[in-house]
Amino acid sequence: MFGWTRRFSTATSFLKTTTMAVSSRQQHTFQVFRDVPPLRKLRRELLLSNRTVGLVPTMGALHEGHLSLIRQAAAENTDVFVSIYVNPTQFGVTEDLSSYPRTWDSDVAKLEELNAELARQNTNSGRITAILAPTSKVMYPTLPPSSEVDGDGSFVTITPLSRKLEGASRPVFFRGVATVCMKLFNIVHADRAYFGQKDVQQTVVIKRLVKDFYIDTEIKIGDTVREHDGLAMSSRNVYLGKRRRAVGLVLYEAMKAAENAYNAGKVNRSEILDAANSVTERVLSEQKALAPTERALYEVDYISLADPDTLDELEVVDPAKGAILSGAVKMAPLEEAKPGEDCGLGDGQVPVRLIDNLIFKPRV
Amino acid sequence: MFGWTRRFSTATSFLKTTTMAVSSRQQHTFQVFRDVPPLRKLRRELLLSNRTVGLVPTMGALHEGHLSLIRQAAAENTDVFVSIYVNPTQFGVTEDLSSYPRTWDSDVAKLEELNAELARQNTNSGRITAILAPTSKVMYPTLPPSSEVDGDGSFVTITPLSRKLEGASRPVFFRGVATVCMKLFNIVHADRAYFGQKDVQQTVVIKRLVKDFYIDTEIKIGDTVREHDGLAMSSRNVYLGKRRRAVGLVLYEAMKAAENAYNAGKVNRSEILDAANSVTERVLSEQKALAPTERALYEVDYISLADPDTLDELEVVDPAKGAILSGAVKMAPLEEAKPGEDCGLGDGQVPVRLIDNLIFKPRV
Repeated sequence: MFGWTRRFSTATSFLKTTTMAVSSRQQHTFQVFRDVPPLRKLRRELLLSNRTVGLVPTMGALHEGHLSLIRQAAAENTDVFVSIYVNPTQFGVTEDLSSYPRTWDSDVAKLEELNAELARQNTNSGRITAILAPTSKVMYPTLPPSSEVDGDGSFVTITPLSRKLEGASRPVFFRGVATVCMKLFNIVHADRAYFGQKDVQQTVVIKRLVKDFYIDTEIKIGDTVREHDGLAMSSRNVYLGKRRRAVGLVLYEAMKAAENAYNAGKVNRSEILDAANSVTERVLSEQKALAPTERALYEVDYISLADPDTLDELEVVDPAKGAILSGAVKMAPLEEAKPGEDCGLGDGQVPVRLIDNLIFKPRV
Repeated sequence: MFGWTRRFSTATSFLKTTTMAVSSRQQHTFQVFRDVPPLRKLRRELLLSNRTVGLVPTMGALHEGHLSLIRQAAAENTDVFVSIYVNPTQFGVTEDLSSYPRTWDSDVAKLEELNAELARQNTNSGRITAILAPTSKVMYPTLPPSSEVDGDGSFVTITPLSRKLEGASRPVFFRGVATVCMKLFNIVHADRAYFGQKDVQQTVVIKRLVKDFYIDTEIKIGDTVREHDGLAMSSRNVYLGKRRRAVGLVLYEAMKAAENAYNAGKVNRSEILDAANSVTERVLSEQKALAPTERALYEVDYISLADPDTLDELEVVDPAKGAILSGAVKMAPLEEAKPGEDCGLGDGQVPVRLIDNLIFKPRV
């Protein structure tokens, strides 16, 4: 239906002439692009044959949250482009750029498996047809990408949104995100682009970017995908290990307590946030009472109740407009491991910052 | 050939439903857009009928320099879009935003005249088919446009290029230019966009913008259009009056002296710039010797000899790469006018900053 044969032959000839992280002998059901011009050529062909493109930007380390966005993109477009690029300008100089999980082979395997699933389940659905896995020289063609707050380069800044919440502790983060997304949007010219609600401030910044710069791509937000107990999926969860994984659920539980307060009719900041804070305080006391071989400690970075468009903190929620409840918790390194304990990647010594959020929908 | 009839009827129905700065009863040979969605609709139709769009961004106050860019755009595209928007974010808080010439009626008349000329001279040439004259609420849909260096908003910054030369005395200028051009490029999706060489640093910043953000528009630079004696045309020249107009030619003469030195084989900074400086110093001495009713004084802001891509100052010109020679001169207000003297718009009291440049081409 979508001209697979022709694309496969193009893919083969393309793979012959480019250096790939994967073996060039491997055949994929999608093309892998390391540079922009051949991707643009494919994009133009798709446009002229009235096909639609949904872009799912990722930093790799794909998990069920990403796959869920891709499924949504495949349901709404004939072609899904997945970008895999660990963007250095969104990591601060002291952050975990070098240790961020890079899992090319398993990412590609997951995408192949998903394409097979899409083919099995629904012949009318779209497929993953392109992976963009650019080098930093491609994404930052002139100056090397800077993570310094006053570093030089070509950047998009979205203020004051970018200074709030996550931006307060990560001053270059949203500049990096807005900059790399502007490039990806210009490269792909997607009909739709998909972001997960898990990174809620990112969704607000990206929507603002698209509005203020007239980017002709519709932004779609996919629900946060959670583990069976409610923990939001994240590429960084691999660092948690079993003990911190269990305690880290506190953030979601605190959010749910606040949501219950809102759903019960509360609109005042203190009433809503008190519900969340009493959960985080109770769990922390319980942990502190345990032995260092048993407990996992954490610090609450923030719990915010904010306007959905401006992220300004709210004293009172307007029920006609709703609100964004979001929070961040820093899981400290384990103090003492038990023999044979599953401490996660990095032996429980990597501090892990968890974020989560719930949207308080307008009340009808 | 380009489907004029259909477009004219579209234009008529469009004009009925929109508020225009000009009377809606006037018929134009181009559509005038105050908002983005109807322009995008036209753009999409043009794309699907294989027509090409050349964008000429202006701030109005059109002169022969703009018209020359439009002629070039009409020669290379089926459709020319002219944007007319005095962009507040590129004017510093102390600059001349409020007094910048706004000349809608005469601009429209000039564009009509040019369309008639294009029709007469060459039936195969393109035509001006759209004017984009947006409000600031359209160009800055979320936050009001800020001219403060640390003002909030959605901005594109291109550093260190934007801090050099013109940017040294106008810290928000290129942020404003890059931001508004990013919006215009995203709105119009032009095949080509045209800028005058007169604003040479702007051409370097825009080329960098397009490269770093993968904007799919080819940037074309049109030669500086000059008066008969060599003065570069500028919308701000109307403020000069006769006396400052004559003395203001010193900048071009200084540039030509430096160019002569380069063409005679000089490559050292001092040899090239000495040639320019001796002209500006001589003319200033001559003026100082005259009476306040006769003279026009000025300050040289800078004369720069720089790398064509980075605008880094050069000690030695690499003849294989060439250089950009550029300068800025501030014409002081007249000290004393003579009775009946033509002192220009603002009675000779508006300080006028003149800029000019010459490209030193690589030597073969």
